[in-house]
Amino acid sequence: MDFGGKTLSGLIYRRTHRIKGYECDITGEITLPSLVNLMMDLSGQQSDSLGNTNDQMSERGLSWIIVQYDMQIERMPHQGEEIILETEAMSYNRFFTYRRFRAYDENEQLCVEVMTNFVMMDIETRKMVQIQKDLLTVYQADEIRTMVRMQKPIQLEPENRKEQDFRVRYLDIDYNRHVNNAKYFDWIINTIDPKFIMDHQMTAVTIKYEKEVEYGNSITSVMSTKEAENGEIITAHRIMNGEDLACEAHMIWKKV
Amino acid sequence: MDFGGKTLSGLIYRRTHRIKGYECDITGEITLPSLVNLMMDLSGQQSDSLGNTNDQMSERGLSWIIVQYDMQIERMPHQGEEIILETEAMSYNRFFTYRRFRAYDENEQLCVEVMTNFVMMDIETRKMVQIQKDLLTVYQADEIRTMVRMQKPIQLEPENRKEQDFRVRYLDIDYNRHVNNAKYFDWIINTIDPKFIMDHQMTAVTIKYEKEVEYGNSITSVMSTKEAENGEIITAHRIMNGEDLACEAHMIWKKV
Repeated sequence: MDFGGKTLSGLIYRRTHRIKGYECDITGEITLPSLVNLMMDLSGQQSDSLGNTNDQMSERGLSWIIVQYDMQIERMPHQGEEIILETEAMSYNRFFTYRRFRAYDENEQLCVEVMTNFVMMDIETRKMVQIQKDLLTVYQADEIRTMVRMQKPIQLEPENRKEQDFRVRYLDIDYNRHVNNAKYFDWIINTIDPKFIMDHQMTAVTIKYEKEVEYGNSITSVMSTKEAENGEIITAHRIMNGEDLACEAHMIWKKV
Repeated sequence: MDFGGKTLSGLIYRRTHRIKGYECDITGEITLPSLVNLMMDLSGQQSDSLGNTNDQMSERGLSWIIVQYDMQIERMPHQGEEIILETEAMSYNRFFTYRRFRAYDENEQLCVEVMTNFVMMDIETRKMVQIQKDLLTVYQADEIRTMVRMQKPIQLEPENRKEQDFRVRYLDIDYNRHVNNAKYFDWIINTIDPKFIMDHQMTAVTIKYEKEVEYGNSITSVMSTKEAENGEIITAHRIMNGEDLACEAHMIWKKV
């Protein structure tokens, strides 16, 4: 991640978590949706612990919206492991806040690192607003004037695309009345050939959310696969809601 | 539940759990699949704590299979609540074991009670086998000669049925290589009109599993609704895998 040479940091918040069987896939490793859910919950826990609750946000008619995740995966921890989850609100500028998550194993070896990018949304208009700084002071994050450079999602190949349709279901909608951001990973992963998933290991993931989807929408998950010169395999993904791009993503894989 | 007048009990195992946002639906209450996942994990935790692990089962080529849940719901706990989850392996006969789960709120008020019925399955043949008693002694459950009477799922109405098709997805399959039993609740709930769910409160649920479904299967979730004389509303459900009945269920609701 490019922080323009500045030292950027905020308060660190940690918690341990034993990985449950139902959080894992057939390989016994935690699924991406489960990991993302745990991380989002962790940042909520940090906010609560600092007295900066969701209630305070909603009193001002605001809500946090996740824009992007950039993940580096050393290894996905598996069922029964007691992992350490860590988060840190690192920096913010006029519109964006940057938060890092890490998952370590019980020997403090880094398993997964995730850089994320949140904005504040007006709940009524569903539009992004300027960051209200006073809500951020508790995190002790640094104010910056620049943008942190996030990954650009790799674009779909023009040919050999594969696609799968999904309906947005009642249980996909959370208390905030929109589709939980972890669901997009469900749609993406469930479009990939299971044999490919079991024969490969994910090493990096980038996802960028563009437009919310709603209950009852029919979405199409489109993907393509290509092999890079270094032998890595890149899957590129788009979630389309009719003509609208709901999110773009790519995943980098190596053979196991 | 009818225990034939006998006192039946085993060791009790408890744990607290803070309900996460992603475990809840749009109403802010924990979803049935999330609650069931937590309960199944709890019984696994009890087994581990008593030194009776899944590994011991698999060494003998055995796995636990859930046959039925009977739930009584006082109220579904909601996001942020710190609940107490409790389980007790109560009794067993030649083929069945009976385990109770309870969820209490932080004031020890009972929210949900679930009676369950497990069998031991031979992993190779996928068939039920006689209970191997020595694996059960650690739970201090009572051996009984009778069957515990569980609820019979209420049958579908002959008319005005509603149905919805679902594909079994890669992420629906867990480490045991079959569809996680909580998934069936996803299919059932996602077939009900969301407006009905939001206008009603679930007071009882019975589900009986008949036949496993596999990755790639296309299942149909069928339901019907009727009003009982006492004003309660009963939804009856079937998950069909082609011609095969995968599971039957009913839910009892009252207006909110």
